[in-house]
Amino acid sequence: MACCGNCFCCRCCCSEGETRTPEELTILGEIQDEEDEILPRKDYESLDYDRCINEPYVELLEGMDNKKAKKYEAVRWMLMFAIGVTVGLVGLFVDFFVRLFTKIKYTLVADSQPAALQQCSDRGCLSVSLLELLAFNLTFVFIASVLVLVEPLAAGSGIPEIKSYLNGVKVPGIVRLRTCLCKAAGVLFSVAGGLFVGKEGPMIHSGAIVGAGLPQFQSITFKKIKFDFSYFRSDRDKRDFVSAGAAAGVAAAFGAPIGGTLFSLEEGSSFWNQALTWKVLFCSMSATFTLNFFRSGINFNKWGSFQLPGLLNFGEFKCPDEDKNCHLWTVVDLAFFVLMGVVGGLLGALFNCMNKSLAKYRIRNIHPKAKFIRVLESLLVAMVTTVVIFAASILLGECRDLYSPTTHNTTLSGSEDINSTIRQFFCTNKTYNDMATLFFNPQEAAIHQLFHQDGTFSPVTLSVFFLLYFLLACWTYGVSVPSGLFVPSLLCGAAFGRLVANILKVKLGMDIYPGTFALIGAAAFLGGVVRMTISLTVILIESTNEITYGLPIMITLMVAKWTGDFFNKGIYDIHIQLRGVPLLEWETEVEMDKLTANDIMEPNLTYVYPHTRVQSLVSILRTTVYNAFPVVTENRYNERDFMKGNILVSNNIRFKKSSVLSRAGEQRRRCQSMKSYPSSELRNVCEERIAAGGEGERGEDLLQQMLERRHAPYPNLYPDQSPSEEWSMEERFRLTFHGLILRSQLVTLLIRGVCYAENQSSATQPRLSYAEMTEDYPRYPDIHDLDLALLNPRMIVDVTPYMNPSPYTVSPNTHISQVFNLFRTMGLRHLPVVNAVGEIVGIITRHNLTHEFLVAKLRQHSISV
Amino acid sequence: MACCGNCFCCRCCCSEGETRTPEELTILGEIQDEEDEILPRKDYESLDYDRCINEPYVELLEGMDNKKAKKYEAVRWMLMFAIGVTVGLVGLFVDFFVRLFTKIKYTLVADSQPAALQQCSDRGCLSVSLLELLAFNLTFVFIASVLVLVEPLAAGSGIPEIKSYLNGVKVPGIVRLRTCLCKAAGVLFSVAGGLFVGKEGPMIHSGAIVGAGLPQFQSITFKKIKFDFSYFRSDRDKRDFVSAGAAAGVAAAFGAPIGGTLFSLEEGSSFWNQALTWKVLFCSMSATFTLNFFRSGINFNKWGSFQLPGLLNFGEFKCPDEDKNCHLWTVVDLAFFVLMGVVGGLLGALFNCMNKSLAKYRIRNIHPKAKFIRVLESLLVAMVTTVVIFAASILLGECRDLYSPTTHNTTLSGSEDINSTIRQFFCTNKTYNDMATLFFNPQEAAIHQLFHQDGTFSPVTLSVFFLLYFLLACWTYGVSVPSGLFVPSLLCGAAFGRLVANILKVKLGMDIYPGTFALIGAAAFLGGVVRMTISLTVILIESTNEITYGLPIMITLMVAKWTGDFFNKGIYDIHIQLRGVPLLEWETEVEMDKLTANDIMEPNLTYVYPHTRVQSLVSILRTTVYNAFPVVTENRYNERDFMKGNILVSNNIRFKKSSVLSRAGEQRRRCQSMKSYPSSELRNVCEERIAAGGEGERGEDLLQQMLERRHAPYPNLYPDQSPSEEWSMEERFRLTFHGLILRSQLVTLLIRGVCYAENQSSATQPRLSYAEMTEDYPRYPDIHDLDLALLNPRMIVDVTPYMNPSPYTVSPNTHISQVFNLFRTMGLRHLPVVNAVGEIVGIITRHNLTHEFLVAKLRQHSISV
Repeated sequence: MACCGNCFCCRCCCSEGETRTPEELTILGEIQDEEDEILPRKDYESLDYDRCINEPYVELLEGMDNKKAKKYEAVRWMLMFAIGVTVGLVGLFVDFFVRLFTKIKYTLVADSQPAALQQCSDRGCLSVSLLELLAFNLTFVFIASVLVLVEPLAAGSGIPEIKSYLNGVKVPGIVRLRTCLCKAAGVLFSVAGGLFVGKEGPMIHSGAIVGAGLPQFQSITFKKIKFDFSYFRSDRDKRDFVSAGAAAGVAAAFGAPIGGTLFSLEEGSSFWNQALTWKVLFCSMSATFTLNFFRSGINFNKWGSFQLPGLLNFGEFKCPDEDKNCHLWTVVDLAFFVLMGVVGGLLGALFNCMNKSLAKYRIRNIHPKAKFIRVLESLLVAMVTTVVIFAASILLGECRDLYSPTTHNTTLSGSEDINSTIRQFFCTNKTYNDMATLFFNPQEAAIHQLFHQDGTFSPVTLSVFFLLYFLLACWTYGVSVPSGLFVPSLLCGAAFGRLVANILKVKLGMDIYPGTFALIGAAAFLGGVVRMTISLTVILIESTNEITYGLPIMITLMVAKWTGDFFNKGIYDIHIQLRGVPLLEWETEVEMDKLTANDIMEPNLTYVYPHTRVQSLVSILRTTVYNAFPVVTENRYNERDFMKGNILVSNNIRFKKSSVLSRAGEQRRRCQSMKSYPSSELRNVCEERIAAGGEGERGEDLLQQMLERRHAPYPNLYPDQSPSEEWSMEERFRLTFHGLILRSQLVTLLIRGVCYAENQSSATQPRLSYAEMTEDYPRYPDIHDLDLALLNPRMIVDVTPYMNPSPYTVSPNTHISQVFNLFRTMGLRHLPVVNAVGEIVGIITRHNLTHEFLVAKLRQHSISV
Repeated sequence: MACCGNCFCCRCCCSEGETRTPEELTILGEIQDEEDEILPRKDYESLDYDRCINEPYVELLEGMDNKKAKKYEAVRWMLMFAIGVTVGLVGLFVDFFVRLFTKIKYTLVADSQPAALQQCSDRGCLSVSLLELLAFNLTFVFIASVLVLVEPLAAGSGIPEIKSYLNGVKVPGIVRLRTCLCKAAGVLFSVAGGLFVGKEGPMIHSGAIVGAGLPQFQSITFKKIKFDFSYFRSDRDKRDFVSAGAAAGVAAAFGAPIGGTLFSLEEGSSFWNQALTWKVLFCSMSATFTLNFFRSGINFNKWGSFQLPGLLNFGEFKCPDEDKNCHLWTVVDLAFFVLMGVVGGLLGALFNCMNKSLAKYRIRNIHPKAKFIRVLESLLVAMVTTVVIFAASILLGECRDLYSPTTHNTTLSGSEDINSTIRQFFCTNKTYNDMATLFFNPQEAAIHQLFHQDGTFSPVTLSVFFLLYFLLACWTYGVSVPSGLFVPSLLCGAAFGRLVANILKVKLGMDIYPGTFALIGAAAFLGGVVRMTISLTVILIESTNEITYGLPIMITLMVAKWTGDFFNKGIYDIHIQLRGVPLLEWETEVEMDKLTANDIMEPNLTYVYPHTRVQSLVSILRTTVYNAFPVVTENRYNERDFMKGNILVSNNIRFKKSSVLSRAGEQRRRCQSMKSYPSSELRNVCEERIAAGGEGERGEDLLQQMLERRHAPYPNLYPDQSPSEEWSMEERFRLTFHGLILRSQLVTLLIRGVCYAENQSSATQPRLSYAEMTEDYPRYPDIHDLDLALLNPRMIVDVTPYMNPSPYTVSPNTHISQVFNLFRTMGLRHLPVVNAVGEIVGIITRHNLTHEFLVAKLRQHSISV
């Protein structure tokens, strides 16, 4: 969360906006007092999934026959393959180095251990081992932490960021190459540094960045990497590729291509696009099998075969062949699974609650301070973790008999034997230290131990392990290193499950398969923490490669989610909320349908006319923060002319009554933040406004003043006006809606000098192609970077060829569920509200549809009713 | 296809309609001549997935707090569980009896066989066996065929019907209980009767019917089964439950709950609804595990364990433990898989092409004849099949050595050993007849043989088997019995794959795993025939329970689909097309964006006014076949009154110029088909119209006549009119759009007497609740069933509380891709086209968006440009 606060502060004043009206502030303030929640911030923008089919796009289409379309389709497939392979290679890189570092570490520590094993039990000898371990871990964590200082967005698991992005929120920087590099390198060190973190979340984030970057063939960090591929340069295509990349990340991390595809559907897509889904599945498969191919080759020297599934796999659950009465699970077990689901949900809710408090504490107390404080926190966590596992292994571990090496010990799908990862650690031969076996292994190996070790773990060990792990993992998630949460949760839950199995099998003498219980425990706790449903079920099924676990896993996850949802949200949603991201839910609650579009829309709009003077556009762009402007004409028979021959009449600006008020107020606010701007002309205007506003908050008076000075309400900024005096007030403020133009489009038009002189026809205006319009995607220039001296303020811009002439619209009496569905499903950024006679009365953006906003509006509504 | 022709003929005149304008007929006729294609028929209606949020619904919402909403949610979950369990039980029923019948048959035949085995090879002895078999098979197929006569919709696989339904087309009768009973019972007999048909398609259809029926708690066939559960009584909820049921059907048939969920998404949902998908997955899981539970119990007496996956499973693919160099597949094999995909695609295309010609032949030559002809065809197919397999086994089968009974013979997941299903059939001990092993077994067992039999099949046998099976299966699909296509395709393809494996392994000496090639062959052929992608991949992965097959299966299916699509469509799409179902594709082609909504909409509309006289409504409903009517007001300041206080002014009817023309023409056509109608008053009018129309086709003259007789253009049918003489023609025909009302809603209002007298206020009109409005769902009464004597024609109906006040709309210059996305994604039935000033200019339905219509329009467009 820290990262956001820091890296956005510079953007706050120039991004999306739709700043809160006083009325809204009142509503929102009310909740803020009551619940101390962090509300969705207004400075996040939406991605625009809807295509803007304007004239340049239609021109592009004209040149597009089916053959060319097929070529693009082929390119898409190749890109998907490329993304999959690249993500697979990133996974391979992370996996290879984590293994290497961990191996080096444990080899070194083990070198000193055997000596310590029998001969020395005095303190000096032990402390050598401890110090060696500490030195290693602290170094690694320090490196990870420094990498996060380089790119603050590399902290954490990355899943909240990807979830936000796929939900349609543009979070600047999260799909940048630098983030990817810092994240992939950082997670190596944080995992190898012995922290209780996983590498799966960062893998997914890295995958998403690969997906975003590869098809653009460009990078902000390395400016030289830039090819020209304008066709894919839109929010729509980028989001599709990010979906694929994230799916490939999941596929590589868990060896679960179907699960990955469902993950990107569950978190992202609001609609089912068969062609896209098919490509995403292909991309996921490519990632899984690239990773599989190279790992089989490198680790086992079996090039060409596909021995190993994903980075995390759970080994094979299998009854011994000779035991015909063994079942992985039976109907009776299902009842226990439900109970474990409840407990998992409770534990997950506790975890989330603790982590949330911690995160809030960090936001308030750590993030405002110097950055090195965060590094210190990481080092502190690393130190405590190391000391705790060392102490616990020595003091609390029990020496258990090695289970006789039977023939049916499950193999790790062709890799090491399960017994190769047990740790003797001060225990005599033929016995092993159960606590050390869990703590002094990579987490994946510990999970395997809990799932497949036929030998037993003592209940005390399991309880202590669970408790320590729970607390340390909770503390760790949120420190300033790249850190996933999947594997720690699984391990923690597996210990809980194994504990249940121990009790049932040993104490109650039931005939159960302990591995199943460990798996279900892992599912229950993970489900309780992250609250994912469909994709998590499928990921776990694919990781176990055992379809018969479908029902128990699903029921456990369902129960865990329901139980947890009773108390709080999933951990990712909590962190998204803490960042103030305006996430849209899946659907609105039934009772929200008491509201209509009219109740929630933003009624104060800034318009442009089809033909507008350059000076008007510049002033509108500079004095507002809106990202889209409705293109309107006066509603007095003009629209008929507009309809008839596309001859547009009006090129002057007029305001709705309420708009004048809010515009004045807003300009005052803007001006205060724009004082440093060099244009003296503009500053003067601002100051004049402030002076006017300074007279008091009497809005009605201001309006009267403005209306009196109607011929020049904004001197030098707006063109001369020629109002028809006979029009009634009401008539003047009725504006027929013709289309929507984006800020980025207007700025591009101005920069490229698309305008015509007053005495010429609009046909003389230069025309821009689709490629020229999108050349600067995704970082369009800012209006404040525009050199005013280059523009002739009296020229006129015809925006009609570039506006979106047919955005989806709703009528003011549309109910919220319909508005929400349309907005969410179509991936809109702006949804104009147009009344029965074609006049625009408001606009709806993502911020008008967040749960918090709707709840506030519903409360207001029920008070007024 | 036969069934449609028959059961719809009575509905043609009273269902959806939007009868073709002359212009359309010209366009469509043009294609018809060129390609001899069957065009989408106009008499299919759309399902309405969009909620109509009118006043009764809002009232329902008012009474709905979150607690009640949660109750409904809980009911939904329970219903999903109930559907899953029921579908599982249906599957169990089918499976149990198929097994029973097959067992009885083969036991009896085998009883005569051992005698035949060595001693008799003379013709008399053989013919006894053959006759026994023939008698059995013909009897069974006869029963299946008779069941289809009872309910014609029970024929075929049912997947085309379900695909149409999930696509949003209302096909009458396909989700009726009677269809389910006939289908489930019929498939028993057609499978047991030795036809080359599968039981998977019918299972999916049965599942969908269970899904549709269970939540309604009512049945048309058994009228007594009827509970009151009005909340779920809408197209929207029904379609959701049908999705779940179909998914459960797949899950039960293949033991593939995830595949089933993806099937219902791929075929049905155009949007991703997380809550629904999660429920569907739960439903699928319930079905799989219900079936699993009972089969484990009944077949193996292991109650409480879950030994068996779905009805169809592929056994375990596993390398023998001792062979460390064995790989299921390697990178090198992938190249062969791609080639096999190409061949599979070609074979599939050939299969589809042949089956299509056959189906067309049947439509032309068999279906018009008496019904018993169809039964005879079924019997002929059964006879030929029986004789062919008998002859082939004896004449062409080779006696192969039994592979030494090694320890690593794969078991059928706990059921019979693979060697228990080999057939000696005239071969000596220690050898077996390879052809008979494939032909004289249930198809599932034959697939197992091809996948897992370590013994070999001779290339000749495999080739002959493939050829015979290919031809017979192609002939069989389409005869008048319930018949799936999955298993025959798999078996056919497995033979092809095994043949490839034979060649590679024996002739080229490559080190390959033959079972993998058989599996890939099966996937390639099935993919070539059905052209499903995502769901088929997942279904096959789940059926093999081996995640490592993901990539090869996916690549094979992809290549097969691409190859096949080069020639024709998938078999299900072909049959859908032959039925003339207006299926919507996934997305429009890029070049369709050259068209706009204006180009494709239906411009001739019939309107109603907010307040309309009963007699006007009756005449509109009787003289048109539209299913929805825009509610409009005259566009002359009236709309402002409408806006202000919901006081509606106009209650008289006026027409657009073109509407008058088309209305008159249409009325003429309608009248001819309505002559038998008892109401003499109406008939008189009709005759008068015909007489008027009989004067000639001079439309302009007719219009003039009408405009002259303006005060009573439709005597006794429309209320008196008081036109303002000073209005221009153009002004009179501009109509502001306020909402959309359905035919069913209007009829319900009339039947329930919702109207008020002229001298009263509309507030005195009785109000209907949501339950009353939907009581007759899904079979609303027809206007022709209305007793006119009960209605006072001078009363006025206020339709505003019941209309949909805020349907999604588009502007006339919206491009097709946007229109299509909106229509498809939101599951709309009618999409009004409204211009910039709020006037309705046309309406778009499913028929305006079918591929054929768009292609025709695009051609017309490019000619005119």
